[in-house]
Amino acid sequence: MKKVAISVGDINGVGIHIALKEHSEIKKICHPIYCAHQEVFEKACDILKLKMPRDMDFFPLDQNIPDIFPSSITSQSGRYSYESFIKACELADEKKVHSICTLPINKKSWSLANISEIGHTEVLAKRYHRDTIMMLGCEKMFVALFTDHIPLKSVSSHITAEKLSAFLLNLYKNLKLKNVLVLGVNPHCGDGGIIGDEDKQINLAIKNVNEAIKKEIFIGPIPPDTAFSPINREKYRFFVSMYHDVGLAPLKALYFYDSINITLNIPIFRVSVDHGVAYDIAYKSQPNTQSYLNAINLATKNGIFYE
Amino acid sequence: MKKVAISVGDINGVGIHIALKEHSEIKKICHPIYCAHQEVFEKACDILKLKMPRDMDFFPLDQNIPDIFPSSITSQSGRYSYESFIKACELADEKKVHSICTLPINKKSWSLANISEIGHTEVLAKRYHRDTIMMLGCEKMFVALFTDHIPLKSVSSHITAEKLSAFLLNLYKNLKLKNVLVLGVNPHCGDGGIIGDEDKQINLAIKNVNEAIKKEIFIGPIPPDTAFSPINREKYRFFVSMYHDVGLAPLKALYFYDSINITLNIPIFRVSVDHGVAYDIAYKSQPNTQSYLNAINLATKNGIFYE
Repeated sequence: MKKVAISVGDINGVGIHIALKEHSEIKKICHPIYCAHQEVFEKACDILKLKMPRDMDFFPLDQNIPDIFPSSITSQSGRYSYESFIKACELADEKKVHSICTLPINKKSWSLANISEIGHTEVLAKRYHRDTIMMLGCEKMFVALFTDHIPLKSVSSHITAEKLSAFLLNLYKNLKLKNVLVLGVNPHCGDGGIIGDEDKQINLAIKNVNEAIKKEIFIGPIPPDTAFSPINREKYRFFVSMYHDVGLAPLKALYFYDSINITLNIPIFRVSVDHGVAYDIAYKSQPNTQSYLNAINLATKNGIFYE
Repeated sequence: MKKVAISVGDINGVGIHIALKEHSEIKKICHPIYCAHQEVFEKACDILKLKMPRDMDFFPLDQNIPDIFPSSITSQSGRYSYESFIKACELADEKKVHSICTLPINKKSWSLANISEIGHTEVLAKRYHRDTIMMLGCEKMFVALFTDHIPLKSVSSHITAEKLSAFLLNLYKNLKLKNVLVLGVNPHCGDGGIIGDEDKQINLAIKNVNEAIKKEIFIGPIPPDTAFSPINREKYRFFVSMYHDVGLAPLKALYFYDSINITLNIPIFRVSVDHGVAYDIAYKSQPNTQSYLNAINLATKNGIFYE
């Protein structure tokens, strides 16, 4: 059974509840190792009035055992979720686990704890000195993001044939996909240059990369508004979006509860739930666990999930 | 029975085929007046091997009768579609029709015919000296666009509290909606300013407008990626998107065939199909007519369609 390191995320959010709720389920397909103190899970069980499962394996952190303050932003929860994540990475680096699955953190808590990176992906980029690729989706549809957490007005300056070619090539090397639909950036792909000319760079990058790999893998650029039409989604399962929201808004409109987040182009295999800490329901009502179950399912597969 | 002027769009595209195919259907709910020569429809029937309906009313244009060259971009088809559109506007101005419904034009054909405006919406803005509002959608979900056919990199410069307040106020005056979800512009609405600060302007505009109209009509800004989640779509039917694609990509992912295009804030009521000339199938295979049927349906209602 494949071992999966699970970082617990923000202990004041829905993460631990999700882990507890689905522990017996995920045990059927993997051997989960929770990067946290057992005592933290026991505290969560007390608040949630749940019985603590007896068969959970923990990897305690070199931290004081924190208190849980449901739905609160605290530096302690920020630090704890960070250390839990780092521990999961270490276990993967040392090949003690097959992959890691991260539960959601709170970015403000990280900032309060003086953690310089914005979130998981930035830590991974720094840790492994690689241009990470953020890909979100579910079995039916995945979207890889060429740019992610940058202001919308900065997107255009990133779109050069050179940078995008490198990205597409990395994506191909990581996933060996058969065909991928690449979105343009301007409305109607610029309508032949009338509405911006960055789409010409995208066109060039696609040509260059297809030539380099000697296959017509990447198709596009296609106008972003029609990229996810039913016909296109029948033909394509993988999409490349030039920026965060034009790819994720359709994904979350279609597959809100199913989506997970994958970090590509790093030496470890990391999946994550595709939702936040959900303070509005944390320790109060039942969180939806579909994204977590899908993430764990993928964490046990790696590499070959996409064919 | 309400009269609807129908501009035939690009005669080399799917427009006339759609009009012919659904003529008997739309006659049940309106009195259509086709802004074209009967002879053009007869030529289309010859190519399509269809029988010409006997009960079509035409309003001939002051133009030579053009030939049809299926799927070709010609200046003649550009000019003819433009004149058909202008005639429809004139009929609406003179109150000879209740509303107008436009079939798709080809922008390059317009350009070849030396028409200075990019498309329908730009003509309407110039003709009526108004800031038009482009809204797309169907019964289940409408998206109004704060900016439309501009390069992505220019979007940010348009987002000021003043401009957006004027837009929201116009939208409210036109539709008297009960609640509207307003999307932010940066990923995660800027995450408190870490990823751009334009979302603060959006926040300010929403506050200003709600205060001005003394009702909490506009809600947001909400992160664009989660705006169209199933939960939000249960609560909201009307959305405001800061730019073209982040609003239209989810709409077309969900309701590709149903969507129509409405121009608001002008003295006439204009609806349009939400697709292009479809040269790939024009005069060859059957076009999908759902958008046209929905557009005509709305064209007979006006004003009260949204409650």
